Amino acid sequence: MAESKITLGRYMWERIHQIGVDTIFGVPGDFNLQFLDSIFHVNGLKWVGNQNELNAAYAADGYARIKNTPGCLVTTHGVGELSALNGIAGSMSENVKVVHVVGQTTRAMQQNHMMIHHSIGAKPNHQVYNKASEGLRFAAAELWDVQSAPGEIDRVLKECVIKSGPVYIFLPLDLSAEMVDKSLLEKKIDLSPQVDEQAQDKAVRAITAAIAEAKQPTVLVDALVQRFGAVREAKKVVQMLNVPFFSTVMGKGIVDETEETFVGVWNGEISTPGVKEVAKAADLVITLGYLPCDTNTAGFSRQLEEDKMIHINPFDVVVKGTCYPSTFLQPLLAALSTTLPSPPNHSIAKPHLPPPRTPLDADAKHLTQSWLWPTMQSFIAPGDVIVSETGTSNFGICDITFPADITLVTQIYYGSIGFATAATLGADVARRELEAAKTRALGRTILLTGDGSMALTIQEIGTMIKAQSKAVLFVINNKGYTIERLIWGARQPYNDIVPHDYAHLLPLYHHPDPASSFHRATTKEELTAILAKPQVRQPECLQLVELVLDKLDTSWKLGTTLAWRSDEHKEYLTKEGFVDTYGGWGLDGAAGGSVKWS
Amino acid sequence: MAESKITLGRYMWERIHQIGVDTIFGVPGDFNLQFLDSIFHVNGLKWVGNQNELNAAYAADGYARIKNTPGCLVTTHGVGELSALNGIAGSMSENVKVVHVVGQTTRAMQQNHMMIHHSIGAKPNHQVYNKASEGLRFAAAELWDVQSAPGEIDRVLKECVIKSGPVYIFLPLDLSAEMVDKSLLEKKIDLSPQVDEQAQDKAVRAITAAIAEAKQPTVLVDALVQRFGAVREAKKVVQMLNVPFFSTVMGKGIVDETEETFVGVWNGEISTPGVKEVAKAADLVITLGYLPCDTNTAGFSRQLEEDKMIHINPFDVVVKGTCYPSTFLQPLLAALSTTLPSPPNHSIAKPHLPPPRTPLDADAKHLTQSWLWPTMQSFIAPGDVIVSETGTSNFGICDITFPADITLVTQIYYGSIGFATAATLGADVARRELEAAKTRALGRTILLTGDGSMALTIQEIGTMIKAQSKAVLFVINNKGYTIERLIWGARQPYNDIVPHDYAHLLPLYHHPDPASSFHRATTKEELTAILAKPQVRQPECLQLVELVLDKLDTSWKLGTTLAWRSDEHKEYLTKEGFVDTYGGWGLDGAAGGSVKWS
Repeated sequence: MAESKITLGRYMWERIHQIGVDTIFGVPGDFNLQFLDSIFHVNGLKWVGNQNELNAAYAADGYARIKNTPGCLVTTHGVGELSALNGIAGSMSENVKVVHVVGQTTRAMQQNHMMIHHSIGAKPNHQVYNKASEGLRFAAAELWDVQSAPGEIDRVLKECVIKSGPVYIFLPLDLSAEMVDKSLLEKKIDLSPQVDEQAQDKAVRAITAAIAEAKQPTVLVDALVQRFGAVREAKKVVQMLNVPFFSTVMGKGIVDETEETFVGVWNGEISTPGVKEVAKAADLVITLGYLPCDTNTAGFSRQLEEDKMIHINPFDVVVKGTCYPSTFLQPLLAALSTTLPSPPNHSIAKPHLPPPRTPLDADAKHLTQSWLWPTMQSFIAPGDVIVSETGTSNFGICDITFPADITLVTQIYYGSIGFATAATLGADVARRELEAAKTRALGRTILLTGDGSMALTIQEIGTMIKAQSKAVLFVINNKGYTIERLIWGARQPYNDIVPHDYAHLLPLYHHPDPASSFHRATTKEELTAILAKPQVRQPECLQLVELVLDKLDTSWKLGTTLAWRSDEHKEYLTKEGFVDTYGGWGLDGAAGGSVKWS
Repeated sequence: MAESKITLGRYMWERIHQIGVDTIFGVPGDFNLQFLDSIFHVNGLKWVGNQNELNAAYAADGYARIKNTPGCLVTTHGVGELSALNGIAGSMSENVKVVHVVGQTTRAMQQNHMMIHHSIGAKPNHQVYNKASEGLRFAAAELWDVQSAPGEIDRVLKECVIKSGPVYIFLPLDLSAEMVDKSLLEKKIDLSPQVDEQAQDKAVRAITAAIAEAKQPTVLVDALVQRFGAVREAKKVVQMLNVPFFSTVMGKGIVDETEETFVGVWNGEISTPGVKEVAKAADLVITLGYLPCDTNTAGFSRQLEEDKMIHINPFDVVVKGTCYPSTFLQPLLAALSTTLPSPPNHSIAKPHLPPPRTPLDADAKHLTQSWLWPTMQSFIAPGDVIVSETGTSNFGICDITFPADITLVTQIYYGSIGFATAATLGADVARRELEAAKTRALGRTILLTGDGSMALTIQEIGTMIKAQSKAVLFVINNKGYTIERLIWGARQPYNDIVPHDYAHLLPLYHHPDPASSFHRATTKEELTAILAKPQVRQPECLQLVELVLDKLDTSWKLGTTLAWRSDEHKEYLTKEGFVDTYGGWGLDGAAGGSVKWS
């Protein structure tokens, strides 16, 4: 006879699995241990333990970005949940779906204000940690009785998906063992938003009318398209419109850069020469999932004229300043694509951009950032998952034109260094799940990070090795925080980090074949040889590539962005010895360019 | 001509230095960089950058525990401050003085709700992170104008010291550059509590009267004595009373265990045989700085009868149930010591405890926990700073009788694993400062931790190496979370961690002499030889000792504590194959004892 009752803990994991989560990240602790057992009772659900809770939050975030389901992590009361908080705030900032399950002290311990370990004070309030995350989540199920708990769990899982961001489930340990009807699992949680058809129609009509009127419309694809699960719909809309389109840095690769109509990354004043000029020529700009933070707009330099704009946002549409509320991004784009004329109204010739510029350090033998990023382009293959870190990497990737079907994971708005390394674990676990399920043919998982950032979360490389990840990790070793050296304190000791001998990193974590999986490049020739190695191109186990670069060398976009901010900062950069390898800090004509240490 | 104005940033660092802080921990970020420069303008103030912010918070906490001044860390807006939060909550829980300086976005950015990186949402409230720490700090200076800022800084620094716990200084980047009068530094911050002499006298009289009446009084020394800076005073009081005294686990070593009148660690039902019996014979128990959490009372098993108690607490005294409010621990103990009779009223013979028991695995050649902890006793020398981690270590240390002048750093109430490794950095920096200032003659810094805990914060060993620390790090390698295996899931994969080959840890961080500084023991003979090595006894650089132990071997106190909780748990331990090496789970007579894997 089949069981008719299951524990609440099991119910929670079953529900989480039903909405597409196949792996739970986290760290065990004595207020979640018992209900961790239930993970193994859910058919198809796996456990990947992390080295610490912040890393678990980053991994869950990376997982969610690849699978377009929530990511999930579990921590323990106080010590665990607080350690994860910065990762959760990142998911909030960047609209990433994450479910954070917290194993709490028992209800009796809470009611009696017992001085249980992980608490504060002589008569502790065990809910003090819960309060800490209040402003950093979209919803929370603060579970207390078994009657309302299943409904509460369902509610927050739905909110996680609809609002696209972090939610919490606070589960007291004793409550997790109470029984609920298994039959509650039969009716799946309805995750679709409740579309107001009238509101949506109105918005779609306003959009199509504005497009029909425009002579030179263009599209700007941004990050929230991906976060709100509308990638396929956005691709369709862009194809049907048949007009030149751009991406932001955060939106890079969402619509294939191999499309005929793709112009480039429109990064305000700090765009590749020619890109900004093409964008400015448009008489209508349609943004999809726009996220105009400083780091995604080259310091707010992408000046938009609102009377020439259509913003298709997650929950509304704004057409030339008029707001059409109560819409949802994904169904709206789907509806729009059925309404757009076929064949398209517009046929605009692809703009002609100036040829690539030659950096002053083109002839250098040693590894330079002006050479590195365009070179990485030849390494990246269709379907690759690329995780890129805040720092010089996130500026460098702009100089890579992606092949088709690239998924870029990068936290450009929240910008918490260390994210990328741990997110790579989650992204890779998700990639392998999609591969195993034959849902999508994906390539490799590739991390682009720096020594300063990797140091924060370096132990998660151990988890990757244990999980038999085949990711390729590139780490720029430039002895510290180069992005900060450009901002302030080029020679201050606080921008130096602990030096690493990366040859010992893989063996520390019992990598199966460290000798042939660690690679170190100080010259262009060395990196060229490394990128040609079969085990790097088609890895059978995790690969680590150390890129030794000069302390003050950086991609041109970073230096130019900073120089653009003020004359004072331009002077600072020059005084400290940063050199623009394109011969000037400006971007007029062929000028502008990469900064490097002289 | 001497400068008459200094920046507010400089003012803040000068004030922090004035109250005894000589090293600032933290991680640079673009909202604190500019005022980090001012650290180097303060005579005698140093910077030790950490590998991440949680580690910085732990390091500052460890520093404070050794120096009895605040520890200080600086982080950046959002990403940094949230990453440190769990460390701060630990300082709150354990009453450790920590100043957390947060470099915030500029006031203009905040007022205009700008979408600056590290923010959340389309119209971000930059104060959302500030709210997250509200319940986890004693005070906060939310600085906004240069007129009130110096006073606010002074106020929270005083609160940090008086309340003994974490405080925040939120400093917008632009405000840090505004100028204040340097003359403000002349009058030092008055850090002494405002003693209500009448209230104190009343309390002291009640205490001395109760003591005079008692035939068999005893003292129990606990952690808050250390936290509230009353170690010297407590030592004096204990010496003058001349009665048998005990410590808790958290209070271990605060009053020297070499004192004639020291009986042992009174750990409720899980005390070394004989100790509990002696304690129970007392007709008056005087607690000093009592912190009765579950993990400091063997699961609340130290049953106290309030009508036989005097509690000398941080802010009040309770004599046989009557409360005497408005006192302060340190001045009260000072006053008490001047009032106590000399020669003392009491002369009680030292109790005779049963001889040490012989564990069942005494003859094993391999390393066992029943042998490890008593053996460590011979290694520890007067003046050593011992940092011990939550896990088997914190139970094992109870089996070490300390020589004189030991400072134990351990986070037994908050119990956040990973703390000890990063706190060792801070403790060692503080130890060296005291050594350099010839304030105290201290020995070595010794870490006792496990592989599961060290993994969370392992990169801080890199910071120690960079800072030329000579600490001796012992890491128990038992392939995971042994303490959790005893609680639940002895064979569950979530209690296994990423395996480490520790031989590569020191070279990863460019240790100057890794070959002769890494040691690995799997047998008793090997560890005996290692402990005799000159470079381990008197290290010239950081030493790492790996202790290979069986997966389910643990110190007897841990297994016995858990078995004591319930018959059900005793059954669990037996069923899962844990073995009590003293031949039973009880503690009657010669029974009780160490659990080990069969």
